[in-house]
Formats: sequence, C-alpha cells, structure tokens
Amino acid sequence: MPELRKDPITGRWVIISSERGKRPTDFQDQRDKKRGGFCPFCAGNERTTPNEVLAYRAQGSTTPNGPGWTLRAVPNKFPALQIEGEVNKQGEGIFDKMNGIGAHEVIIESPDHNATLAGLPLQAMEEVLWAYRDRMEDLKKDTRFQYALIFKNEGLTAGATLEHTHSQLIALPIVPILVQEELDGCKRHYELKERCIFCDIIRQEMQTGTRVVLETARFIALAPYAPRFPFETWIMPKSHLSCYTCCSQEDYKDLAGLLQNVLRRLDRALANPPYNFVVHTSPFKDERNDYYHWHIELMPKLTSVAGFEWGSGFYINPTTPEDAAKFLREVKV
Amino acid sequence: MPELRKDPITGRWVIISSERGKRPTDFQDQRDKKRGGFCPFCAGNERTTPNEVLAYRAQGSTTPNGPGWTLRAVPNKFPALQIEGEVNKQGEGIFDKMNGIGAHEVIIESPDHNATLAGLPLQAMEEVLWAYRDRMEDLKKDTRFQYALIFKNEGLTAGATLEHTHSQLIALPIVPILVQEELDGCKRHYELKERCIFCDIIRQEMQTGTRVVLETARFIALAPYAPRFPFETWIMPKSHLSCYTCCSQEDYKDLAGLLQNVLRRLDRALANPPYNFVVHTSPFKDERNDYYHWHIELMPKLTSVAGFEWGSGFYINPTTPEDAAKFLREVKV
Repeated sequence: MPELRKDPITGRWVIISSERGKRPTDFQDQRDKKRGGFCPFCAGNERTTPNEVLAYRAQGSTTPNGPGWTLRAVPNKFPALQIEGEVNKQGEGIFDKMNGIGAHEVIIESPDHNATLAGLPLQAMEEVLWAYRDRMEDLKKDTRFQYALIFKNEGLTAGATLEHTHSQLIALPIVPILVQEELDGCKRHYELKERCIFCDIIRQEMQTGTRVVLETARFIALAPYAPRFPFETWIMPKSHLSCYTCCSQEDYKDLAGLLQNVLRRLDRALANPPYNFVVHTSPFKDERNDYYHWHIELMPKLTSVAGFEWGSGFYINPTTPEDAAKFLREVKV
Repeated sequence: MPELRKDPITGRWVIISSERGKRPTDFQDQRDKKRGGFCPFCAGNERTTPNEVLAYRAQGSTTPNGPGWTLRAVPNKFPALQIEGEVNKQGEGIFDKMNGIGAHEVIIESPDHNATLAGLPLQAMEEVLWAYRDRMEDLKKDTRFQYALIFKNEGLTAGATLEHTHSQLIALPIVPILVQEELDGCKRHYELKERCIFCDIIRQEMQTGTRVVLETARFIALAPYAPRFPFETWIMPKSHLSCYTCCSQEDYKDLAGLLQNVLRRLDRALANPPYNFVVHTSPFKDERNDYYHWHIELMPKLTSVAGFEWGSGFYINPTTPEDAAKFLREVKV
C-alpha cells in the first residue's frame, strides 16, 4: 500500500510508493530507458490494459475492451495510488501519514499511435474535454476523494513514458497544496474585494491586451503576468466559473477550438515542444463558489529547473510574457 | 534590468530576465547544446571571468585574478539579477513588481577541471564551507538584500551548464517563498510547543534510527520522513543553530567531513548521480532565533518531475526514506 506522508515543517504531502521499492540500480537502468516497441494504448491492444472505465464508441457497434473506440479511459496499470481501502489517517510520533488511497487513470485520446492532441480533429478534442468531465463526475461520487487532478505530459522530457497521446487523472483524499494555495489566495482577495481575483485579472488583461494570446466567445488564453516558464499560457473562461464540470455543452465546444488553436501555435512557434498542462478546478466539497475560477495551466518545458528553483521556489524566466504572447499571437496556424 | 514579478494569486515571485529576451528559436538551439570546450573556471583562465570577490591563496604568493588559488568566487558573467540599482517596488494595476536587484556569484571549488566536490580533500571541502560563510557575511552588509541562497547543481540533468565543479550564491531583496514557508511552519510549532521543530525531528530520528544516514559529533544526515525525491538527504547541526554563518570553526570542520562522506556514499550507491543541494538558513534580519534550524537539502535527480507534480505540489517518490537511508548507511566508502 502506498503511503501519503506530510512534511511536518511545510505541510507538503508526498506519495511514497513503497511497493515500487526502487533500489539504487533501478535508477541507473532508467537513465538508459528508451521508448518504443509494443504500445498498450493502440487500437487492437485493449486486452493489455486494465478494463476500461469509459469509452466513446459509435453506439452498439463495438464491445467494451475491444477495438472500435474513439476515446478510452482505463485505470493506470502502475498506479501511484491504490483504489481499494480506507484512508486511515495516523500519527507516527511527530509525523502524519495516511494510506495512499486514490484513483489513477489514463485517458487515451485517440486510437491512432501517431496522433497528437494538437493534431486531433475538433470533434475528437471535444471528446477529450467531455472525458475529463465524465471521469471527474464519476469519481466525485466516491466520498473518500476530495479532488481530481487532470494533467497531461507530452514528450519524454515532460515526463511522458508512453508516447501514444494520453492524459491522466489522479483522484486524491486531500486537496493538493498548490491548489490550496490558490484557493487561499482567492479567498483573501474575495474577503477584501468581494470579487474573484481571476475575473479581475481577465478584465485588466483584456484592457491592456499585451499578454493576451487568443480569445474566443467564451474563453481566453493569456501569458500570466508572473510566469514560471517561457511561453507558459493560462486558459480560462471569460465569465466567472468555479469548476470544470460546471461547463455547459457550448463551453466545451468553444474551449476545444481554443485549446486546439493554442496547442498548434505552440507547436508551430517552438517546433513541437514537450509540455505539461494541468486543470485546476474547485475541490469536490465546494464546487460552486464565487471566489475561485477554474483554468488550465499550460507549461512548455524549454528550460531546466535546478538548485535555485528547488531551494527557493523562485523561477527564472528568460522570456517576458509580453514577448511570448506576441510571438504566439503572430504565429500562422 | 531584470524584473521580479509576483503572481497575485499565490504570492509566488518570478525573475523575468527581459534582457536575455529569449525568442522561440533560442530554445531549439538550447536543446542541442553540449558541454565541453574552453573552461573559464580553470586555473590560467582567470581573466575570462569577472574580477574575483574572494579567493583563497597561499598568502603573498600570488596576485588577484591570476593563478595560484585553491578556491575562487566571482560574479556570474550571466547573472539572473543585476547588482546595480535600487529595488523600487511598484504596482502595475492589480500586479506587483520590483527591479531585479541581487547578487549572483559563482564559487569555483577547485582550480582542477576534473575535480568533483565529493572527491576534494577534506581541507578543500572545508574551504568551500568557509567561502559560503565569507560571501554571505559580505553580502549581508548590503541593506538591499534580505537573503542569500547558496546552491549547487552537479551534472547536466541537474542544471549545471559548466562542468567544472562550482556552487552558486544568489542574494535577493526578498525571502524566497520556500524558505518563508519553512519559517512560517517553524514559527507555528514554536508558538505551540516553545521548541524548534527541527530539534524535535532530530530527537525522534535519533531514537528510531531508521532514517539516519550518518552522524558525527556535531552533525546528522538523514532521509526526511516525507522526501520529494528518492535518496533526498538533509544535513543539519544536532544542536539548535538558526543560521549557517553562526557556525563555529569546529562546526565547519565537522560538517566538511560529514558532507564529504555523504556525497561519496551517494556517488557510490547511485553511480555519480546528478544532484542539487541548497543551504537553508535564517533571513539576514533575524539570523539568531529559537525557532528555525539551518540545514542543507541534498536532492539526487533520479526521477523526472512531470504534470502531476507541477500541477499539485505533490511528489511521487518510489523509494521509501527508510530504504534509502539503509542503502546509504551500508555503502562502503
């Protein structure tokens, strides 16, 4: 059983996967690891993954865990957290821990091994967004979980160990500290101003315009004022909306177009960079609120993070967000 | 002039190096970058670095910025922050910024291009620790600075762009957020218990013993209870000591031996892994206090950090600290 352990000084939780139990030599092997070979995510290889928890198929045409799907969600075969069991919070002298209970799922975005998320047709991109929603809605019913984090690793240096295009979801018994810090910041602003700080930012950014990458009827993509990484881009609904699953059908349709466009601009401007994105939404327990604004944080991985960043929490970004937004605006897609 | 900008939601500061002004194509070049060739840190090449701010030499035997040194500290030729100017805090609508004022120095730990910190003789290791102290003491006099962060990147994947062994120091006009979070946690514990939380941890760890890597008369190296990374190791004085520069001559002598031993164990167990370490000490303004305990955080870079970590602040660690400490204890050095 993996463990969740809390650093007693900072309150930061870590997942200790004791049964992976990596020995020193395992890491040396890992350094030489290359990708390629058999792909469990390809159409026809459905039996090599755990049974699907969701699939989109032409109705009645095909059977579960067989081919014929356009999108498929399955439990991660090597999950960071374990789905069975109770959370069981405990002390260990001065320390705090709990069982590493959680869901770890993979959303296979296409049956085609050579597809990329940016390259998917609009309809398929919209299906990806619906899959995020459907899985979140399902996991919300499990009262052990407080949060579901959707994320994507694209490219080996961004941490993608399988190259077949996919996103991941990890449902957690606690709210992640980075989300909690955003929630706390938003609450402070709301107490002071009775306004959502994201709404305030969007309003100011639309006025100045220098950091806006792209705008649609319902969504905006912008370079944040204090980005950690060059070409970091945030995507959010222009009107106040506290949770991802609160989006309407029209919202997902609009977002699919904007996300596709932004990813294509990044690919064009930066020659298919490795990237991560994460969906930040409100915790299950307080999904609809006035202070938090759900959004996607999209981070191309172009620079390396070293001792200064690990030790300080500061980031050094060699590209101004104004320059980055301008480059992305001017890219032809 | 670089800028310090604050994320209005989380309070996280970033350094925007506008004059580096990296364009999209600059990052593609960087991906192909290899190390090697001319080394400005080697003995004989002193004229190719900015003028030294510190050097240890046999007295009277050699002249500044010429060969004959055993250790040398110089300003970074490509500093993240600028030394001249005023901090000049300003608003920009809803946002906050200040000038990117700071010192960015390099501590060249040996004149020998092929040396490693782990491989240095004890005397040279002790000189490195004294150099950290001397530079911190000097920068403390500059009232624009609140903090000096010492860190080391060893190996290309840990962010070392020059392979000649060196540490770095960045003096900052604000206390880094990760240090501030530790300070806040320590203060909370002190208010509750009137004890230093690090002292409490050290006491419990010495009793259980399972996470202790190595102990000397004055220092202890241990695997923290909730490590972010496999084989993460913290080094701290066993008795309460709030700041690095408060150490006695005997402390540095003792620490040099322990640090050398721990680095050699990591090299042996993990085949010379890339690593980062950072020195966490109290801010200049409140150096001697009862609640904070200075320490070194040493982080081998064996796993990759991806979307989940970037989005959540959670870390997934596949090696328990109990296993890691046992491996390191049992290594022969």
